[in-house]
This record gives sequence, C-alpha cells and structure tokens, in this order.
Amino acid sequence: APLAAPTDLSSLTRIKRELVAPPFVHDHEQVAPGAPRIVEFEMTIVEKEIEVDDGAYLQGMTFDGSIPGPMMVVHEGDYVELTLINPEDNLMQHNIDFHAATGALGGGALTHVNPGEKTILRFKATRPGTFVYHCAPGGPMIPWHVASGMVGTIMVLPREGLKDHEGNPVGYDRVYYIGENEFYIPKDESGNYKRYADAGESYPDTLEVMNGLIPSHVVFNGKVGALTGDNAMTANVGERVLFVHSQANRDTRPHLIGGHGDLVWEHGKFNNVPDRDMETWFIRGGSAGAALYTFLQPGVYAYVNHNLIEAVNLGATAHVKVEGDWNNDLMEQVLAPTDLAAF
Amino acid sequence: APLAAPTDLSSLTRIKRELVAPPFVHDHEQVAPGAPRIVEFEMTIVEKEIEVDDGAYLQGMTFDGSIPGPMMVVHEGDYVELTLINPEDNLMQHNIDFHAATGALGGGALTHVNPGEKTILRFKATRPGTFVYHCAPGGPMIPWHVASGMVGTIMVLPREGLKDHEGNPVGYDRVYYIGENEFYIPKDESGNYKRYADAGESYPDTLEVMNGLIPSHVVFNGKVGALTGDNAMTANVGERVLFVHSQANRDTRPHLIGGHGDLVWEHGKFNNVPDRDMETWFIRGGSAGAALYTFLQPGVYAYVNHNLIEAVNLGATAHVKVEGDWNNDLMEQVLAPTDLAAF
Amino acid sequence: APLAAPTDLSSLTRIKRELVAPPFVHDHEQVAPGAPRIVEFEMTIVEKEIEVDDGAYLQGMTFDGSIPGPMMVVHEGDYVELTLINPEDNLMQHNIDFHAATGALGGGALTHVNPGEKTILRFKATRPGTFVYHCAPGGPMIPWHVASGMVGTIMVLPREGLKDHEGNPVGYDRVYYIGENEFYIPKDESGNYKRYADAGESYPDTLEVMNGLIPSHVVFNGKVGALTGDNAMTANVGERVLFVHSQANRDTRPHLIGGHGDLVWEHGKFNNVPDRDMETWFIRGGSAGAALYTFLQPGVYAYVNHNLIEAVNLGATAHVKVEGDWNNDLMEQVLAPTDLAAF
Ligand SMILES: [Cu+2]
Ligand SMILES: [Cu+2]
Ligand SMILES: [Cu+2]
Ligand SMILES: [Cu+2]
Ligand SMILES: [Cu+2]
Ligand SMILES: [Cu+2]
Ligand SMILES: [Mg+2]
Ligand SMILES: [Mg+2]
Ligand SMILES: [Mg+2]
Ligand SMILES: [Mg+2]
Ligand SMILES: [Mg+2]
Ligand SMILES: [Mg+2]
Ligand SMILES: [Mg+2]
Ligand SMILES: [Mg+2]
Ligand SMILES: [Mg+2]
Repeated sequence: APLAAPTDLSSLTRIKRELVAPPFVHDHEQVAPGAPRIVEFEMTIVEKEIEVDDGAYLQGMTFDGSIPGPMMVVHEGDYVELTLINPEDNLMQHNIDFHAATGALGGGALTHVNPGEKTILRFKATRPGTFVYHCAPGGPMIPWHVASGMVGTIMVLPREGLKDHEGNPVGYDRVYYIGENEFYIPKDESGNYKRYADAGESYPDTLEVMNGLIPSHVVFNGKVGALTGDNAMTANVGERVLFVHSQANRDTRPHLIGGHGDLVWEHGKFNNVPDRDMETWFIRGGSAGAALYTFLQPGVYAYVNHNLIEAVNLGATAHVKVEGDWNNDLMEQVLAPTDLAAF
Repeated sequence: APLAAPTDLSSLTRIKRELVAPPFVHDHEQVAPGAPRIVEFEMTIVEKEIEVDDGAYLQGMTFDGSIPGPMMVVHEGDYVELTLINPEDNLMQHNIDFHAATGALGGGALTHVNPGEKTILRFKATRPGTFVYHCAPGGPMIPWHVASGMVGTIMVLPREGLKDHEGNPVGYDRVYYIGENEFYIPKDESGNYKRYADAGESYPDTLEVMNGLIPSHVVFNGKVGALTGDNAMTANVGERVLFVHSQANRDTRPHLIGGHGDLVWEHGKFNNVPDRDMETWFIRGGSAGAALYTFLQPGVYAYVNHNLIEAVNLGATAHVKVEGDWNNDLMEQVLAPTDLAAF
Repeated sequence: APLAAPTDLSSLTRIKRELVAPPFVHDHEQVAPGAPRIVEFEMTIVEKEIEVDDGAYLQGMTFDGSIPGPMMVVHEGDYVELTLINPEDNLMQHNIDFHAATGALGGGALTHVNPGEKTILRFKATRPGTFVYHCAPGGPMIPWHVASGMVGTIMVLPREGLKDHEGNPVGYDRVYYIGENEFYIPKDESGNYKRYADAGESYPDTLEVMNGLIPSHVVFNGKVGALTGDNAMTANVGERVLFVHSQANRDTRPHLIGGHGDLVWEHGKFNNVPDRDMETWFIRGGSAGAALYTFLQPGVYAYVNHNLIEAVNLGATAHVKVEGDWNNDLMEQVLAPTDLAAF
C-alpha cells in the first residue's frame, strides 16, 4: 500500500463532470482552457440482467448502468478523481483498473469496494490517448467481470488538442464512443440460451464457455442493435467525426462501410503519428483506439467489426445516418441494375 | 439513392483493362503516364462448386471465376468504372462493395444485380493503397458470400509511384496478388466433409460452422496448393517483388520463410511510411496490405500465414521459386548434419 | 543446396556466448565494442515430458531444455554461428529456422539433424530487431514441434544501440525475455487431460486439438506460474527495463498492469520509429517484439496477455516485483473503501 505523503494539490481548480451514457460523451474542451485541473467523476456500479439479443440474457455488471461504462475526457496533466460506489444491493466486490494510470495495478489494488462501500481514487493523466478502464477484482473474477460488461474508456487529450500527421492542429465536430464487448452466454442441450437467477448461478457454465474462447455474441454498446435503426449515430456531410473504439478483452477490426479513417490512432496514443486513409483498423484486446473521419457523402453507413460473421451474425454492427448532398464525382451509378436482355 | 447530376467526365481518356486471374496482375504503369483516366473493368460473377482440398467441396461464389477475384490497378485520381454481370444461370443476387470507394456502402447500395442483370458503377480512387472489394448483398448473406469466395483487391498507386521510408521512389520488378480466404465446410457425424447439391442446400450447415468462428480451411488463392509446386510463384535473385495480400474477413500474418519484408505497408495505404525489416506482418480482417522484398538467395521459399497450424494443416502456404547464385556471406552450412560419433 | 565458395571470415574476431534460460539473457554489450564478430552459440535439443499446469502434461520439445529456448544477442553485421546438437536419446529429427536469417528457409533447409547428429550453421545478422527462431522440420511436423515448445528469439542490436522516437540513444538497465506459447493438450471423455507415453503416442490426439485452433493453455516461459510468485521478474523504481516478447504461432497482446510501454517496437524491428505511451501492444503470431519501460511506482505488477481469459484462466500471466518509493502525485488513494453508512 502507498505510504508517501499526499501531494498538495490545494491550489488546483476542480471541475466536476457529469458522465453520460455511450455513444455520447460529456461536454469538454478540445484544447485545455488553462492550467491542469482536478477533474471529478462519480460512477455507481450496477449489477443487472440484460437482454443482449432476443431471448439471450446476460448477468450483466456495469459501470454506471451502461455497457460500456461512460467515457471520461480530461487533458494531459490533469488529475482524475473518481468516486466509485458499490451499492448495498449488489452481490459482488468490484474495483477499477485504469490503463491510463501509473501504479497499484492501475488503481485496481486501491479500489476494492464491497457492496455498501465507496472509494475515491486520484491519478494523474500523464500520457495523451484513449485508454481502457475495467474491473479487475482478482483471479478468475477478472475475465468474468470484464466479459460481463465492466469496461469503459478515458480519453486524455493533449493540452493543445489533437494533431494530424504533419503536426498541425485538428479538431472534431462530434465524438462517439463505441465500446465493443463479447459475451459468452451458455446454451442448453437443445442449443437454446440458458437464463440464470443471478450472476453466481451463471458462473460455472459461463466459465466453461469463456475458456473455449469463442463468444456467443460480439456487440457494440452492450446489445445487438444498440447503435442501429432508431439508435443510429448521426452526422452531416462535411463534419469531422471522432470514433473512439474500445475492446477490453478481444481483438477487433473497425471498418466504416463506404467511408475511411482519415487519421487513425490505432493504438489510441496521441503522441504517435496517426495513420492515413485506413480501410480497416485494429484494436488490440485491452485497448482503445481513435479514428477521425470527415463524411463526404450522405446515407446510412454501417460501422462494423470487419470479421463479417461477428458483425452480422454475432452483433457487431452500428449505423451512422449522414445528411447532406451526394457527390457524383466521388461515385456514380452509371447504369442501374438492368436486365441483360436489354443489351 | 444519389440524386446529384452526373459529373462531366467527357474530357477524360478512357482505358479498358483486361483482368487476369491471381496471383497475376494485369499490365499497368507504376508511375501514371499523364492525367487521370477512366479505367474500365468488367467482371462476371460465377457460382460454382470448387474442390478446395482433396474431397472437400465448397459451394463457391466468385468474381470472374477465381478466388480471390482479379486484382485491379489504377492510380490515385483515376475513375474506376466497373461493369458487373450476374449471368442468367446464377441463383443469387450479388453486389460489390469497394473499400477504396466513398459513399453508398462502397457502391454496395448501387450494384445489387439479380441473375440476368448487369450494372455499371463508377467511383473516384482518391486514396492510394491496396483495398479489398467484396460482395455484401445484405444481412447474413454478407459473411456467407465473403466466406464463399467473393472477395478481391484493387491497388490504387500514387501517381508518382511508390515511395520508400525516406520518400524516395521505389519500384517493383514483379507483383503477385495472394488472396487468403477461410472456408467453413461442414462435416457429417463421421467427421467427413459434406457435399451439397447447391449453395442453398449448403447454407444452414455452413452458417452453423461459420458462427463457431473456426474455419475448416485457410487457403491462398482459393484452394490448398493453388500456389505451390507447379503453381509456385517465381522470381530471380536481385528482383524486387511486391506481394499484395488480402483477407476480407479474418486476420492473418504473412511471413516469407528465409526472407523478409524490406518495406511493408501493413495496412496497405501508401501515404504512410512503410515499416522495414519485417519478419511477419499483419493483415487485419477486411483489408489488404503490401510487402516489397528483394530476393537475395536462390531456392524455394514458403510464403505462409505464420499461424503454422493454418499454414500447414489448414492450407495457407504458397511457394516462390527463386533462381540465382547463393551468397555464402549471408548464410553458410559450416558443418552438414554429421554423426556425433565422428567428433 | 548452396554451391558458392565459403566466405573468408578468417580475419574476424570470434566470441563464444553461454546461453542462459529465459527470462534471463546472456551478458552482452548494448553498443557494439568494435568491428563485426562471429558470435558462437551452442544449443542441445531436449525432448522431455513437462507438467505445464497441475496435472497437465506436455510431450515437450525444447532448445536447450527450456521453453522458450534461450535468447541470443548479437549486433547488426555480426555473424551468428550456431552448433545444434540432437542427442542420441531423442526420438525425432529437428532443425532450426531463424527469422533473422536470409535464405534456405532461414537455415531450416541446412540443419535437419537426426538423433545422434550435430550441425553448424552460420548466418549474417543484417537487420536489427528481435526475431523468432523455431524448429520447422517439414509438413505437419512444423506446427507440432512449434506447439511442443521449440521456439526462441534472437535480438540483433543496432551497432550503436537502441534509439528512441527522436533518434536519440536509449539503453536499458535490465532485459527480460518472455516467450509465450500455446499448448493443445487433449482431454479424455471425462474432460481430464490425457497423458501419453511419448510424443509419438500423443500426436494423433494433439493434431486434432491443434486443428481446432483453440489451445488448452496459453503460458509464458513454458508453464503456468513460470514467472509468478517466487519466479517473478524484479526491478527497481527508476530502472529502464526491456521486455522482449515472442509468440511463434499465435497472436498475443502484452500489457503491463499499472505500467505502460514508453517505447514499443511492436514488430520488434529497430530501424522503425518506436510507438510511445502504449497501454497494450500486439505480437503477430510468428514474431517477437520489444517494449521499454521505466518503472515509476513500486509494487507487484502483472504482465499479461490482455485477452484476460488467456491471461488468468489459461495461464498467460507473469509478475514483476518492483522496489522503491511510492509517488503520490501519480496516484493516491484519496478515500480507502469505506462503508456508505459513514457518509
Ligand atoms: Cu467487477
Ligand atoms: Cu487491463
Ligand atoms: Cu455475392
Ligand atoms: Cu468490407
Ligand atoms: Cu523439432
Ligand atoms: Cu517461422
Ligand atoms: Mg454518474
Ligand atoms: Mg485490496
Ligand atoms: Mg473479365
Ligand atoms: Mg491434403
Ligand atoms: Mg439495393
Ligand atoms: Mg507505421
Ligand atoms: Mg548451451
Ligand atoms: Mg533436409
Ligand atoms: Mg505507427
């Protein structure tokens, strides 16, 4: 346990951010407005059953009620101060490991809260980038809590904001946070998904599926269809959109059908030169990456994990509805599908 | 659907390219010979049963008869104009989604051709790199058509040609296109591969195997042995060879046994600085990458997916036969295998 | 077979290095002390049964008795001269393929030693970086010998030593070599691991598991717990540690819980600019990468493959015990977990 005396941070400004559910992100400045601040967040852990697809029920565990948990945004050099609450009616001990933090298992060793407890952790955000946070209570609870939904992302912006491949400042008009999770929901002998009274009852079967490494579901934002149809993300032609994508456990490969990544920080770390013109990028299991794209055409875009089995059959598909004018120079239907007999 | 008026391209030169089956690539200039052109291609969709290994039959779907479909080459700023034909005797609707294109699901939304129809799509190649194209007719047909072989690659060269890590021009003496596909061929209760009367009959069983995410075969250019033995690629010592490698659905990791990647565009996008000295590179599922290598020694090289189970047991192995003089400075057999009793 | 005359290397200095078992690395200079040398190594192949987890026995095959085999270190431009010995009491033919070498399948074609034979291979280390070596005796023996443990790494240092992202020299205070392997140990009908009289007896069952692509174990340095508890790696706050990580067959994603990669050569090739601030990096199956980190906080760190199922349930976890003073500016437990009723 840490023994050093507390750092004196009494001269720093404090600001409290209200977290919002993904794919949305709380208000924030892209360029830091002044000196480093202490940024306060509060999250409550919620254990609850979630229907992740028709008839498929997950014994979910969440930060603040959503899968993934809310995205936090601070600037490099800021202090993150998180109050983490485990309500009395939960059944399990939880904690939080920030990949952005330094020491004590990312804070995991200092934040073990039993039901009916709260804790406060502060860490300095020293490295700019998008970083996963997740529950990691120890031993086999670690993969289980992560696979049950206890994951999220913090974005640490450079104080001057983002830079492009030439080092010039670049901003975004919108930001969306897509959290990809895979679930391992057990089936009975007839091949139907099993449903459990509580998380504890689900554990032995779930562990067996997990250890086989093949998920039953691969989803964005906690369930099949969380970001499609009426839940689609939106944008306009000409807008620059930042897509932050996390996967805390299993590799994935985001792709925007009909679009590209103009500037992609595949590892999510902003001190590195972003890659350009990406068709598909790669999120290492246990990380979050970021892709910036200016929409050039209207329409409904699918944003997918480009293992298309995982995208279409297992659930990893989102939509972006984009409004604006079509550009025939970029693409034109020269001949609509026509009967061959016509020629 | 696009409503904007057609762009006037009447002043541009048109050139028609005859596509050839992989691993070969149609004639093309590495440096663009002048102003942007409209480059015309034509592909016919072929549905057919294919023996992908001894006794293992795939209900294949192909662009122009080969798996992968032919590689197209244009320059940045050119217009690609594809005529896509779905012959009367096919059973299914198909389309084409170009990762190189912008809007309308990469053209997928504009090219749904039923059997007996054709369509023409034009798009501007605005980003230099190697990009996958594939069929994406909608819903679960998407992964199924891709896993049945409907994939290929377009290479969009910078107008000035390729550049090395220092920005100096670099060319290639040969180019080969290796398309990796994985298949999910169902087995019967005795563990033998099942054979089907047609694609429709194969679908329910195939879907079940696909959703388990473990392929029965991982192959280059459509079948085990498509690029080995008499079908091996060839080169000479001192020649610079560009290997373009696509995988439209599942990650892979190309490796040239006994060789290297001198310059590797792992994501395949030529505006980025290539990586040097690679032992193994990574193709994200749903992308195409490129690796340039000057052969320094003669012999038969194996070019593999370096998951060696996938390479050797599931099929992902190609050969390159290289002629020239051996360089003893680079490698020498100082002592041939000799009985220990001799010492 | 090579026909060229031997290169005259008679004027070069020879140095013999004694290999040591991982995670340790033999003594070496980070900056080359003079002209290129011939660096001599000797390895003996050991076939033996290994208990890789409680009650789980592998018919192991090893270079020099350890999984992975020992790490070799030379400088760019040096000649590696390996004596490879296959003792009389082994049952199988083996060889060695160096990803760092050029030609003859990385030396694999020149080093097939039967039991009771030895061979000597020399190659020039022309590219700086970390490179896998492994046994590759041909056909399905290749994945089997690799999956049985016959893998290792050579690190080819630039003559001037490592450089950071700005091209400035950077050294390390310690270096550890973590070799990740996955095993495919068959189970009987009751779900218990099977044990075999010898490797040959284990082959048919093992092949079946291998071809399903899902391992039973994913471990560091040959067995569950090889680098945890009393076997943990050690370091001090302020020390710069180089972690070399290999996986010869299957992708992995190293992560240091509570730490970072300050400078990461994900592909392991030192001519490329290292990435900064990494939370998780990616080792392509069939490659070795390197990550440099200066420890900033004391404590026990877990170093994991951040597929947490593979890390915790299948075995891919190591520990680093770090001594020094805690820095409260970087992280502080503002409120220890406390009963909610107290507020
Ligand atoms: Cu938890
Ligand atoms: Cu983690
Ligand atoms: Cu199709
Ligand atoms: Cu696609
Ligand atoms: Cu061997
Ligand atoms: Cu290899
Ligand atoms: Mg809240
Ligand atoms: Mg504790
Ligand atoms: Mg044709
Ligand atoms: Mg065969
Ligand atoms: Mg349509
Ligand atoms: Mg790069
Ligand atoms: Mg020895
Ligand atoms: Mg031989
Ligand atoms: Mg990079």
